[in-house]
Amino acid sequence: MKEQIRCAVLGLGRLGYWHAENLATKVKGAKLVSVLDPFENRAETVARELGIEKSAKHHQEVFEDPAIDAVIIATPTSTHADMIEQAAKHGKHIFIEKPLTHDLEEADRAIRVIKENNVVCQVGFMRRFDSAYREAQRRIQAGDIGTPLYFKGVSRDPGSPPAAFIQNSGGIFLDMSIHDFDIARFLLNAEVTSVSAHGNILVHSFMEQYGDVDQALTYVTFDSGAAADIEASRNAFYGYDIRGEVIGSEGSLLIGSLRYHDVQILTKRGSTHDIVPAFPERFKDAYLNEMNHFVDCLRKSEAPSVNEIDGKIALEIALSAQKSFETGQTVRLPG
Amino acid sequence: MKEQIRCAVLGLGRLGYWHAENLATKVKGAKLVSVLDPFENRAETVARELGIEKSAKHHQEVFEDPAIDAVIIATPTSTHADMIEQAAKHGKHIFIEKPLTHDLEEADRAIRVIKENNVVCQVGFMRRFDSAYREAQRRIQAGDIGTPLYFKGVSRDPGSPPAAFIQNSGGIFLDMSIHDFDIARFLLNAEVTSVSAHGNILVHSFMEQYGDVDQALTYVTFDSGAAADIEASRNAFYGYDIRGEVIGSEGSLLIGSLRYHDVQILTKRGSTHDIVPAFPERFKDAYLNEMNHFVDCLRKSEAPSVNEIDGKIALEIALSAQKSFETGQTVRLPG
Amino acid sequence: MKEQIRCAVLGLGRLGYWHAENLATKVKGAKLVSVLDPFENRAETVARELGIEKSAKHHQEVFEDPAIDAVIIATPTSTHADMIEQAAKHGKHIFIEKPLTHDLEEADRAIRVIKENNVVCQVGFMRRFDSAYREAQRRIQAGDIGTPLYFKGVSRDPGSPPAAFIQNSGGIFLDMSIHDFDIARFLLNAEVTSVSAHGNILVHSFMEQYGDVDQALTYVTFDSGAAADIEASRNAFYGYDIRGEVIGSEGSLLIGSLRYHDVQILTKRGSTHDIVPAFPERFKDAYLNEMNHFVDCLRKSEAPSVNEIDGKIALEIALSAQKSFETGQTVRLPG
Amino acid sequence: MKEQIRCAVLGLGRLGYWHAENLATKVKGAKLVSVLDPFENRAETVARELGIEKSAKHHQEVFEDPAIDAVIIATPTSTHADMIEQAAKHGKHIFIEKPLTHDLEEADRAIRVIKENNVVCQVGFMRRFDSAYREAQRRIQAGDIGTPLYFKGVSRDPGSPPAAFIQNSGGIFLDMSIHDFDIARFLLNAEVTSVSAHGNILVHSFMEQYGDVDQALTYVTFDSGAAADIEASRNAFYGYDIRGEVIGSEGSLLIGSLRYHDVQILTKRGSTHDIVPAFPERFKDAYLNEMNHFVDCLRKSEAPSVNEIDGKIALEIALSAQKSFETGQTVRLPG
Repeated sequence: MKEQIRCAVLGLGRLGYWHAENLATKVKGAKLVSVLDPFENRAETVARELGIEKSAKHHQEVFEDPAIDAVIIATPTSTHADMIEQAAKHGKHIFIEKPLTHDLEEADRAIRVIKENNVVCQVGFMRRFDSAYREAQRRIQAGDIGTPLYFKGVSRDPGSPPAAFIQNSGGIFLDMSIHDFDIARFLLNAEVTSVSAHGNILVHSFMEQYGDVDQALTYVTFDSGAAADIEASRNAFYGYDIRGEVIGSEGSLLIGSLRYHDVQILTKRGSTHDIVPAFPERFKDAYLNEMNHFVDCLRKSEAPSVNEIDGKIALEIALSAQKSFETGQTVRLPG
Repeated sequence: MKEQIRCAVLGLGRLGYWHAENLATKVKGAKLVSVLDPFENRAETVARELGIEKSAKHHQEVFEDPAIDAVIIATPTSTHADMIEQAAKHGKHIFIEKPLTHDLEEADRAIRVIKENNVVCQVGFMRRFDSAYREAQRRIQAGDIGTPLYFKGVSRDPGSPPAAFIQNSGGIFLDMSIHDFDIARFLLNAEVTSVSAHGNILVHSFMEQYGDVDQALTYVTFDSGAAADIEASRNAFYGYDIRGEVIGSEGSLLIGSLRYHDVQILTKRGSTHDIVPAFPERFKDAYLNEMNHFVDCLRKSEAPSVNEIDGKIALEIALSAQKSFETGQTVRLPG
Repeated sequence: MKEQIRCAVLGLGRLGYWHAENLATKVKGAKLVSVLDPFENRAETVARELGIEKSAKHHQEVFEDPAIDAVIIATPTSTHADMIEQAAKHGKHIFIEKPLTHDLEEADRAIRVIKENNVVCQVGFMRRFDSAYREAQRRIQAGDIGTPLYFKGVSRDPGSPPAAFIQNSGGIFLDMSIHDFDIARFLLNAEVTSVSAHGNILVHSFMEQYGDVDQALTYVTFDSGAAADIEASRNAFYGYDIRGEVIGSEGSLLIGSLRYHDVQILTKRGSTHDIVPAFPERFKDAYLNEMNHFVDCLRKSEAPSVNEIDGKIALEIALSAQKSFETGQTVRLPG
Repeated sequence: MKEQIRCAVLGLGRLGYWHAENLATKVKGAKLVSVLDPFENRAETVARELGIEKSAKHHQEVFEDPAIDAVIIATPTSTHADMIEQAAKHGKHIFIEKPLTHDLEEADRAIRVIKENNVVCQVGFMRRFDSAYREAQRRIQAGDIGTPLYFKGVSRDPGSPPAAFIQNSGGIFLDMSIHDFDIARFLLNAEVTSVSAHGNILVHSFMEQYGDVDQALTYVTFDSGAAADIEASRNAFYGYDIRGEVIGSEGSLLIGSLRYHDVQILTKRGSTHDIVPAFPERFKDAYLNEMNHFVDCLRKSEAPSVNEIDGKIALEIALSAQKSFETGQTVRLPG
């Protein structure tokens, strides 16, 4: 087992910063040695704050630095394919935020270059590392609900990101539902055969110009005979609401709850508990767990449990959902 | 106010029997004076058990009996149109189980004859009389969640009815989802503009020969701009699972729970509460409440809150869902 | 089986009125034939409202009326002993509100006269007829939690009754905790051996002049080796909060919930459900169930499941708790 | 602010090991430099496992090591007073597990020597650092429930520790209820004026020879006029059950839940969620949070929020409860 994995984080937006912070202060066996961000001061500031040796000025510095074992890529999706390619060619192991790439051609290229250069790649589907989803999968695997037959996913954001983000997000299916597409595969242990998607703008009329919606529903069928429905919403302004259900042949399973603190306040107006306000509070541990998994895998020379192939498959489902939504037709996936 | 409404129940299947029992023993201001069932002994037995004066041998006896004010029709759907017509022409007020009729032409005819004969008609959408749905609607009306934007309905049966029933049920959309179609209108206070329906057989392969499915999903849009998704399932073998959600512009609302008795058992295997096993346990009070409402309306010469028009609209949505499911196309409803 | 039990209700305060209403409109096999109240108009008004033949002017009318089978006694506790005696001597069956009598001598006299006159007596411990407590007892009897070892009871009122009521209530142990004393016996299937009681005034300072408290705690031991703690409070101004727990040797059990309607409202301030506001909402069904049980027992000539002996035992525990509270000493009950 | 606090852990039992692990791998700004345990191999093994420089053979080594800033004392209670004295005299800051000492004289001596040597002391009341209790206190401080009037605490272990532990534990009030005594002060923001304690052996008959019980109840009054009842149990074999309630003048508050994973399994036998099995799962984060707080305070030269005075007060309440239990009398605490 390797003593230490030396990591660099590329892109210090919200997620990139968390990964950096986790690597610097919480992930045992990891050493964060460099950070990079297009806004140069950002990298320097973060480096100082987290006590990191260097902040890089250009990707090449990172990729060419022999003292770096792995890169965490949290840059815009449009750059993913290039980043992966360069990282792989320089022999760096890769942790990449979802979605893997912008389109399937890029994804295929990324998969090929990762294989050719014999590096490891983990995709940031952090829900798989959340204790509730993980326990759910463990219980399903253990046969506690028999054969899984139906997945019902709900992912609701407390509001819309700004228009600038929506414009480049690839749409609600690629930006939000992709998590449920991956989790459905994970829990049902099956592959998608068809996708039918619907959606409407209920609140955020500005989305019309980008062809996006704030409320979406996808009906999905699987090669195992299972099916699923997956809701995505930007309209749950009461909080961050992520839930799942799996109906099985011998029992069913509900995942997640709205509850944040285990405190209930009782007044004449009723009994109130607070709600998870946003995704950091909900998935903080999952983000740490996935990074621990990535570093552990590198230290033990093991393969991550969720890799570039999973990244491509989820991308394919999401793009199909987007196409179904646009055409009003069910889209069948190639076997 | 009238002292007493003299009622007859036509059809003593499970629902018909409950209505009879409620009228005989619990509905104040009602007197059950006659029951009828194709199996003659059935009517006699029930009459004796409930202490009713007469059991009829033929519908005509009931319709022509001047001592009868109202009839409760719980006969097969195929007979509904005729039953309504005869009842109306004899001046009997009508309580009719859902669906109103088999098709829209019959529905129009029923609506016309009811109007011409100036009788009252209530349709058996008992969920509107369930304390949870009723309270939900009250809270929405009161503005507690702002404008209602999205309805999410789940209706799961603990298993499939026998093949003989499925064959004549009209399909899962007409038999099950029709309740959610009605409730969505009730809670969103809006009319349906389009319906897209999907479904698969997950468990009960025999349904294939009847063109039916055991798991269905309908995506619905409304003239208010709201939307909805509605799941129907025959596969919740853990119990009877009826839930609803309404996302509003200033708050959201969850309706219903799986809990049956307010008792939790704790063991090393976890904390367990029992689940409502079937629809009688879940909607017992609602069935009583709807009958109390019907009789109250007749006593006070008021119009029931859910009538033949509501029955026709729900039928139209359900038939559209069935058509969408069969064609794979979204069906738009005529304004 | 008798066709019909003709009943009279004595005392038309809140509870008496409910009993009257239940008997007049909901209890099958019962006929309410007379009501009585010290305020003469009250009886006439109620008689008219409920469609009852007579309203009595004096107890004697009721007791001497051969057409009356049973009396429901909901008069002040100070009159209970006399009422029971007269009713029994006239051969009337008795339903009596708790507490059975004011003191143990009266209770012994009541028990004797009931026995001598061979009438049936049921005491109004309605919690035994609540679906949650009943299911809890069924599960315990079925062995689902092994041997019951510890009972924890919480009974909280949303506020204090007026001073006039407190003055004659006999104190919080006799007025409130007596329900939990009875339920503890019911669930643990054991008899009390000692009682230690504590209490303080937290809110309602006026209680000091009556030697009463608004927050009380009783620690109880049982002849089976089990123990219990029982809280009573007048300070739960958020609602009516009745809960129970039983720790068993192989599992434990929680009874009751704060939830009223099965509706949850989600806003930025959290997830809120309403709370049972007061005892009518919580125990409405239990009051009806206990009256159904009483009338059923009379029709079938069976003994009620909770009788005058249970009434005396609960009284004895409550009086011991009051004594322990006053002396600061544990009180042992005679075997 | 100091860069780094160099720590040593004395006593590598379960708690000591956690503290060591947290300091070695998770507490930012801390460096674990030495560990000690009476079983010499234990210290060496742990040192190797956690990558620590040294393992000490005797306390003197640790206390005399100028490179050590702070000691975490997790040795048996009987040694606490001496350990504190030596640590303080050598200028080491102190984190000490509860209870502070065995008796009040020792506690007073410890308080004096800590003050004289100007070192910082934090006591291991980790519940104050649990997110639920912390949020509860924040809400109470914010006035969300008005004036706190009553605290109800439940602390149930899933079984008894071995007889050897019970023998030296000081009894259930000192070993278990002390946590609730501290939390009651924390939440009610008031000091105890009297204690009445009761208890019985319900399951573990071996405890009789040690004068201990497996089920205990303490009734407590406070100088603010508030009161409390606190249950401690070794009989919750279903799991680790820690709950609290605070009744306030304008609202009440429930703390904690039995739920472990946010996963619910539905079968015909009901809806089940798993229960927190033991204290590590329940308070893992709290143990980490309290150590972060200790190290943060040392880095920033601030006083810990829970110190040796709090340790002494909780000890005094616990010893009074033990005395009340033994004598059957209420014990009043000196103002």
